[in-house]
Amino acid sequence: MHFASDNWAGAHPAIADNLARRNGGFVKANGGSDFDLQVEQTFRDIFETDVAVHYVGTGTAANALGLSAVARPGGVVLCHSEAHIRVDECGAPEFFAAGTRLESVDGELGRFDAASLETAIGLIEDGGLNAGQVQAVSVSQLTEAGTAYDLDTIGAIADVAHGHGVPLHMDGARFANAVVALGCTPAEMSWKRGVDIVSFGGTKNGCWCAEAVLVFNPDHGRQMDYLRKRAGHIASKARFVSAQFEAYFADGLWLDLASHANRMGARVAGIIAARNRFRLAWQPQGNEVFAVGPKEAVDALAEKGAQFSHWQPPRAERHLVGEDEAMIRLVASFATTDADVAALEVALAG
Amino acid sequence: MHFASDNWAGAHPAIADNLARRNGGFVKANGGSDFDLQVEQTFRDIFETDVAVHYVGTGTAANALGLSAVARPGGVVLCHSEAHIRVDECGAPEFFAAGTRLESVDGELGRFDAASLETAIGLIEDGGLNAGQVQAVSVSQLTEAGTAYDLDTIGAIADVAHGHGVPLHMDGARFANAVVALGCTPAEMSWKRGVDIVSFGGTKNGCWCAEAVLVFNPDHGRQMDYLRKRAGHIASKARFVSAQFEAYFADGLWLDLASHANRMGARVAGIIAARNRFRLAWQPQGNEVFAVGPKEAVDALAEKGAQFSHWQPPRAERHLVGEDEAMIRLVASFATTDADVAALEVALAG
Amino acid sequence: MHFASDNWAGAHPAIADNLARRNGGFVKANGGSDFDLQVEQTFRDIFETDVAVHYVGTGTAANALGLSAVARPGGVVLCHSEAHIRVDECGAPEFFAAGTRLESVDGELGRFDAASLETAIGLIEDGGLNAGQVQAVSVSQLTEAGTAYDLDTIGAIADVAHGHGVPLHMDGARFANAVVALGCTPAEMSWKRGVDIVSFGGTKNGCWCAEAVLVFNPDHGRQMDYLRKRAGHIASKARFVSAQFEAYFADGLWLDLASHANRMGARVAGIIAARNRFRLAWQPQGNEVFAVGPKEAVDALAEKGAQFSHWQPPRAERHLVGEDEAMIRLVASFATTDADVAALEVALAG
Amino acid sequence: MHFASDNWAGAHPAIADNLARRNGGFVKANGGSDFDLQVEQTFRDIFETDVAVHYVGTGTAANALGLSAVARPGGVVLCHSEAHIRVDECGAPEFFAAGTRLESVDGELGRFDAASLETAIGLIEDGGLNAGQVQAVSVSQLTEAGTAYDLDTIGAIADVAHGHGVPLHMDGARFANAVVALGCTPAEMSWKRGVDIVSFGGTKNGCWCAEAVLVFNPDHGRQMDYLRKRAGHIASKARFVSAQFEAYFADGLWLDLASHANRMGARVAGIIAARNRFRLAWQPQGNEVFAVGPKEAVDALAEKGAQFSHWQPPRAERHLVGEDEAMIRLVASFATTDADVAALEVALAG
Repeated sequence: MHFASDNWAGAHPAIADNLARRNGGFVKANGGSDFDLQVEQTFRDIFETDVAVHYVGTGTAANALGLSAVARPGGVVLCHSEAHIRVDECGAPEFFAAGTRLESVDGELGRFDAASLETAIGLIEDGGLNAGQVQAVSVSQLTEAGTAYDLDTIGAIADVAHGHGVPLHMDGARFANAVVALGCTPAEMSWKRGVDIVSFGGTKNGCWCAEAVLVFNPDHGRQMDYLRKRAGHIASKARFVSAQFEAYFADGLWLDLASHANRMGARVAGIIAARNRFRLAWQPQGNEVFAVGPKEAVDALAEKGAQFSHWQPPRAERHLVGEDEAMIRLVASFATTDADVAALEVALAG
Repeated sequence: MHFASDNWAGAHPAIADNLARRNGGFVKANGGSDFDLQVEQTFRDIFETDVAVHYVGTGTAANALGLSAVARPGGVVLCHSEAHIRVDECGAPEFFAAGTRLESVDGELGRFDAASLETAIGLIEDGGLNAGQVQAVSVSQLTEAGTAYDLDTIGAIADVAHGHGVPLHMDGARFANAVVALGCTPAEMSWKRGVDIVSFGGTKNGCWCAEAVLVFNPDHGRQMDYLRKRAGHIASKARFVSAQFEAYFADGLWLDLASHANRMGARVAGIIAARNRFRLAWQPQGNEVFAVGPKEAVDALAEKGAQFSHWQPPRAERHLVGEDEAMIRLVASFATTDADVAALEVALAG
Repeated sequence: MHFASDNWAGAHPAIADNLARRNGGFVKANGGSDFDLQVEQTFRDIFETDVAVHYVGTGTAANALGLSAVARPGGVVLCHSEAHIRVDECGAPEFFAAGTRLESVDGELGRFDAASLETAIGLIEDGGLNAGQVQAVSVSQLTEAGTAYDLDTIGAIADVAHGHGVPLHMDGARFANAVVALGCTPAEMSWKRGVDIVSFGGTKNGCWCAEAVLVFNPDHGRQMDYLRKRAGHIASKARFVSAQFEAYFADGLWLDLASHANRMGARVAGIIAARNRFRLAWQPQGNEVFAVGPKEAVDALAEKGAQFSHWQPPRAERHLVGEDEAMIRLVASFATTDADVAALEVALAG
Repeated sequence: MHFASDNWAGAHPAIADNLARRNGGFVKANGGSDFDLQVEQTFRDIFETDVAVHYVGTGTAANALGLSAVARPGGVVLCHSEAHIRVDECGAPEFFAAGTRLESVDGELGRFDAASLETAIGLIEDGGLNAGQVQAVSVSQLTEAGTAYDLDTIGAIADVAHGHGVPLHMDGARFANAVVALGCTPAEMSWKRGVDIVSFGGTKNGCWCAEAVLVFNPDHGRQMDYLRKRAGHIASKARFVSAQFEAYFADGLWLDLASHANRMGARVAGIIAARNRFRLAWQPQGNEVFAVGPKEAVDALAEKGAQFSHWQPPRAERHLVGEDEAMIRLVASFATTDADVAALEVALAG
């Protein structure tokens, strides 16, 4: 019953096999080989535009480097109060820009809207020099609450950001799960709605270690190679990333894997909703399920061998958890099996 | 004829296979699983001491993080004028510590000695507050000239560093090649001679992407996890690194691969020494061969398909290159074949 | 009618005179002269302990350097949501530590309490490596709402901080006003209640440019000289700061000036409270008065030549301002005259 | 006999008086008042162009902020091996840009020439991504050897810098002494010869604390206010700097003071040259005199009460100092008196 996170699995067999297949021979180091360029072209095909692709080592690095590419002294990045970049990356975005401030925008279920963003930016702009300067806006897709921004909201948020002269960044650690959830194209969920920079995650969805910063506006990417190199994020044998992405994209594997994870998430949610000791905290949209139940039921579930995370209820959702209750998170992945779900059902039924 | 660098090859088959073998099932993310701990124990066995092992994404990251673990404001790291950390890492060591200065110590063939170090440290200490404070000493092993520090010199350098209250860091991008070249143990080439922190490289010697910061003194490592995390250098699926190192160390593979690379380097050197248009710049000790020849001979060699690097002669060795001559570097690796060497011999003979 | 801020005045005549008096002759540069040491001793006398005194150029530098002296990678400083260090220093505390995160603790009237702090620290500690590590707690005295923490609350907050192994910093830009408001000694408002580091401001209270970081625990101050030097905050002619502080402390001038400012603030508050178009937002404790009135009354007051600041109501006090109303801040200083107050009374009466 | 440095004196009386004269009344804080703008206009008149003037707290801050205004990731600043920014500012330029590397260009007597610069830049550009990217060139005027670059050399250096797309910065801690030494105008020694950014020092030449970054190209200065604020280098009572500069420039006082210092330096040099136990290390051009003599003579001079600095001979001038000899530096200033010079003559004669 592995629902702790979507990075407890290894790599999907097709991706592991391709790594072995691409192992032979000699290839130019540090990226830029013919093979690397070919995989970069695949990104362009999938995103239907001339996107720049910069591999990095982790999702945290992708976020921090993407935001530091547009850094300004005294810079402020507006993001949701619960955003991974703000509370779960050990200060990486602040570090990479030697001091960015991540300012909270509140909103329910991991999302803020354009109006709240406008207000938050206004407060900073009114503050003059002392308040610093807005540097970027960042959204997570899926959000930290496992929800998705719909396309219109993304567009409206981008309009606010651009209206104030700053880019929109998307933390796409679960980009594939969100594309599947919305039933849209990658282009529709990014540049067509005004997203300028995407942290494109492959690791949680079946790769070993494959993350990339995607930059749609060349102006934002001019310093990216220097930023990556000085951060130790240019892998010398870059083809080991390219090989993963090659298989990831081949025949739509990436979307199949995300579909599987989302479906498994939905089944978990259905089981939770049907139990009487637990209830869904809110309706999931992707592969993450948040549930609330009595603390003793949570303990019992763990004792039965289910792996999940204890979850701090987001500030806007604290009222959902009663005094003797706790919130938990269960995550399905490309590797979640029917057996796992069935075992969870049994464990919950107990 | 692939002699451009030792990171143009992929992974050794045994390492690639082990990655596939360790792919199944679910494992705790971000390191710390039983499997990760088991591989960490292997490091301890090999180094014969209770070393702390911190995986990072690249050799540049290993150096920069290892040095930033002992950072001080106004900190100065003493290293050779040609040190990779000083001139080839795009400012990474400076960036990771928000401003370290890498101060040159001169010396022939990529090495400085204890006396030169003592003088260089003295200049900084005499400079008072304005000059900053010495933070660490760093040596490369193999050096950037492909030479090795002998054990006594390492010990003498460590004594100077410790005498001034600072640690000794070793950039071990080619640690295995150096161990083989010296015919010593890993312990003898590190902590037994006073080395405190090692950037332990696996990538150049047959891994896909496996680098680690080894910390022998627990005081130096207390902040390392935070440093790695905020730099985006904690891989979520850490076992993909552990799996590489497991195979790397199994049955002494790592030393076999380095021995092969060094032997192939020696054969290349022998061929160079026997040619009349090229000569060895100096005697190689590991897998890197530096040669000098007429510029037109260099061009001709490239036209024949040999891959190598044009090399800027180190400051102390500029006299070795005549006016119409150029210096080149040829690197052998675990993957260098007899055919490659034979082809090089033919190309040089032409 | 100068109530815009307490740094619109010049220097108090006694301080200006002393600067001229200390002008002659030659004195060792960069601090550490006999004269500098004598003034440092005065600090020790006033604080009744062996405090280390580090001059810096501005209050922002004092806060940022004081906090960076205890920096940790992934460090989090807990402070009030409206804290000057969080929203009014253009990212200086983040910059000086290459990435500190300033995390909000909520509370009314610019103050948080020990219980809220405990909860906030707990959230970070529960978050593990991803959440970073608590680095320090910071309080402003006076707060950004012009209120003062009472001594027991300071002590309770210090206990929480120390219980979690981190120091308590106090932004004392208006330290003197707070000491006068509480009727306590400098020692009682600082180290006797557990404060470890104080940004001690003289500029707002009658100096030209005199700020110091006071460090009570020698462990926290070991790197301070390097931190100041690399930040360009060691004035070469340090005696120009010492001369200001010498006069500032002579015969209790500093407390007289603060008393005057607070009294003038109280008179302004009395006038506001007596008006029917304006009301006090809350009861002031020092020299800052926050008032609420109809927007048109605010405009009218400005047209009559009164200088004050439009003020963004703190998050916890937004309910105090009605729809067509606005909040303003009026600040009295050592230089506020009876005539200014009288003119304000007339302007408000109009 | 005060020849230790030109910042051991206080402020010139005319400057001290003006500070008192400008003390009364209320003035907008943080710069930008009518008075501040008026003094800024004086800078424009003196420099005969529309220069932007940014006050900062110290010369170190001026250099570090001026260089950080044009920072790039992996940035390299080319400067003389002995440059103050490289060896005497405790890593400030590195810190302010989160990692700039200051690369040495060699040359005699504190100066490098255009050809050496071209070579040094070429080495970095040839190094590709690993070597980082050239960010700026910096010259000191006067140099650390007390010499001056002539105008043609400045122009030639600027041409090289601009040819590679980077700006030329001038550390003008002794700008006035250099202008007087060359007999040129401030414009001729700066923008007319291609200098883009000047650290303009007033402190060493008679101010209390008055330093400014002068930016001739508006593109370089766009972020300067944010850079200064986040570094704690915007003085709230900015008029205390303006008042100093007002008096500094009035009736050419600044040039008179520098002329006096240079003349006194020349007299000291003449005395040294006439002694038989000491000799001039090289011919001074401004107010700094470098002398070589037997170590025992140096000790004897100190015992007689002369204040001077022991000086590490620059790398290119080490041959000037014999085995039992030492180099010393004597600095004259605006405050050096005939009596001081006469006493020195006696002491040397002893």
